[in-house]
Amino acid sequence: MSARVIDGKSFAAGLRARVATEVAAFKAATGVTPGLAVVLVGEDPASQVYVRNKGRETLAAGMASFEHRMAATTSQEQLLALIASLNTDDTVHGILVQLPLPKHIDEAAVLAAIDPAKDVDGFHVVNAGLLATGGQGLVPCTPLGCLMLLEDTLGDLSGLEAVVIGRSNIVGKPMAQLLLGKSCTVTIAHSRTRDLPSVVRRADIVVAAVGRPEMVKADWIKPGATVIDVGINRVPADEPGKTRLVGDVAYGEVSRVAGAVTPVPGGVGPMTIACLLLNTLTAAQARHG
Amino acid sequence: MSARVIDGKSFAAGLRARVATEVAAFKAATGVTPGLAVVLVGEDPASQVYVRNKGRETLAAGMASFEHRMAATTSQEQLLALIASLNTDDTVHGILVQLPLPKHIDEAAVLAAIDPAKDVDGFHVVNAGLLATGGQGLVPCTPLGCLMLLEDTLGDLSGLEAVVIGRSNIVGKPMAQLLLGKSCTVTIAHSRTRDLPSVVRRADIVVAAVGRPEMVKADWIKPGATVIDVGINRVPADEPGKTRLVGDVAYGEVSRVAGAVTPVPGGVGPMTIACLLLNTLTAAQARHG
Ligand SMILES: NC(=O)c1ccc[n+]([C@@H]2O[C@H](COP(=O)([O-])OP(=O)(O)OC[C@H]3O[C@@H](n4cnc5c(N)ncnc54)[C@H](OP(=O)(O)O)[C@@H]3O)[C@@H](O)[C@H]2O)c1
Ligand SMILES: NC(=O)c1ccc[n+]([C@@H]2O[C@H](COP(=O)([O-])OP(=O)(O)OC[C@H]3O[C@@H](n4cnc5c(N)ncnc54)[C@H](OP(=O)(O)O)[C@@H]3O)[C@@H](O)[C@H]2O)c1
Repeated sequence: MSARVIDGKSFAAGLRARVATEVAAFKAATGVTPGLAVVLVGEDPASQVYVRNKGRETLAAGMASFEHRMAATTSQEQLLALIASLNTDDTVHGILVQLPLPKHIDEAAVLAAIDPAKDVDGFHVVNAGLLATGGQGLVPCTPLGCLMLLEDTLGDLSGLEAVVIGRSNIVGKPMAQLLLGKSCTVTIAHSRTRDLPSVVRRADIVVAAVGRPEMVKADWIKPGATVIDVGINRVPADEPGKTRLVGDVAYGEVSRVAGAVTPVPGGVGPMTIACLLLNTLTAAQARHG
Repeated sequence: MSARVIDGKSFAAGLRARVATEVAAFKAATGVTPGLAVVLVGEDPASQVYVRNKGRETLAAGMASFEHRMAATTSQEQLLALIASLNTDDTVHGILVQLPLPKHIDEAAVLAAIDPAKDVDGFHVVNAGLLATGGQGLVPCTPLGCLMLLEDTLGDLSGLEAVVIGRSNIVGKPMAQLLLGKSCTVTIAHSRTRDLPSVVRRADIVVAAVGRPEMVKADWIKPGATVIDVGINRVPADEPGKTRLVGDVAYGEVSRVAGAVTPVPGGVGPMTIACLLLNTLTAAQARHG
């Protein structure tokens, strides 16, 4: 038996197309163009690639993209001043500060300064609180994308056993909240979990967000389970000096046991930017009507 | 074998005494008396008892108690105006609005109006968000009390399997966050959970916060597990016309299997007010030094 491959790349393309259609309708109805401001401090090469991709996709969806690049030596005060001006800028509906920030800047203070209504990353404490209490807020993009893939694969999730491996504020914890909101019986596992394989073996749904290459093995998986692999790990490739990307799940062997599984790359990864565009549209809609 | 009885009444008395000692030290050091304002709208008899008890315990701990009783016909605007004035009142460090409120008042809007730094019930979305992201906020009293009893009983909780039955914003969800913060492997179960007995049977720690009299049976409990019973249910007593209180756990039979268990009454119940006093002290300490 071979697992169904959950094609995040194609689902994300469909989602981006739906967002573009809704953006066009929103512009026609309100005369307002949703706008996303992305702030990049410093020269981190990976961050530069992410920011470039976000800008390109934002424009492709018919939204306005504002890129703010600041030197690595930017002071926290300068960054906070920029955020304050973006908070009051009516053309900006979403604000994303690319992480990580340089060491001399207090990341928590910067994220706290973003207007929660423009916090399209969903990292602000108010949005975390809304998610935790069943309110309406902006939800972190990566777990939101995972949830969409799960609902597309399984339909109603109510009553299913879900195990989330990882408890970061960015992925694991909000993922658990979202699954609880869909009435799964949710277990959160992490580095202190005893006998992780047997915990994972209970699950109808496994979400791995750990950052350990191919940690989740086939014999951890209940036959037929749906496996979402959030991990992005760079490992040496067969060819000397080259690298390749693998997830937190041993894809080859797990796909012989699972019912459905996301590949890496091409699974969860493409959903993150698509959900960022969706969040920007959602923020604009909330502000105008 | 018979379970150890977790004596919440005596633990709560000890906690209140520790709070009183710290209040005295705080007053000596700062000249400030921690103050708790309790707002009661309407004539609900149970709420009147709770408010009276809170006032008495607040004074007994050496703190100032401010009771605000408003008619059942009070408008939302009048209530919000009172909260606004309490928010800016320097003698008030904690604000508690007794729930439930009359139907014509939007409970969420009222709770949102309380300064999070004075929100000693821990229900404000900012405090929920701080709890969800590992920040420092005010934590809901009942789950905080449960955690204290668990740590007193078990010491370090890291790596233990915990199952929380119930996912309310007041008990179940914050309880799960607290246990995760102590590095338990946490499962949240609820009314949609399939085969609840077998889910509970995995647990080293069971917290029942359901509101169903004696639902949790002995054969749901792993021998030696620690069982915390949050439920308070009034049921008919043997004597006709009389009632008695029982928890969500079938205490008699469960205490023959569990390693330790809280009784009802005298378990979790007394911890709630004690933790309210602690939260008021914590809020005063955060404001002054
Ligand atoms: N767009 C995307 O696809 C996307 C977005 C974000 C992240 N990611 C990827 O997802 C992965 C996780 O990201 P993150 O930000 O959540 O990482 P993180 O903040 O490092 O958190 C990792 C979590 O995994 C847990 N963990 C570590 N070792 C473990 C082990 N041996 N067994 C069980 N749990 C273990 C940790 O537990 P403790 O809490 O006990 O330390 C922690 O909760 C990374 O590979 C990252 O690159 C992908
Ligand atoms: N000081 C104290 O000791 C204190 C403080 C607060 C509460 N309590 C008591 O604790 C209990 C719970 O309070 P609460 O405010 O959390 O109640 P609540 O808001 O009514 O929540 C009850 C939870 O139990 C779940 N549930 C209901 N029936 C179930 C079933 N058959 N199997 C599994 N789960 C089920 C519900 O699931 P769904 O979400 O799926 O509906 C819900 O999440 C009550 O007895 C209350 O009186 C005591």
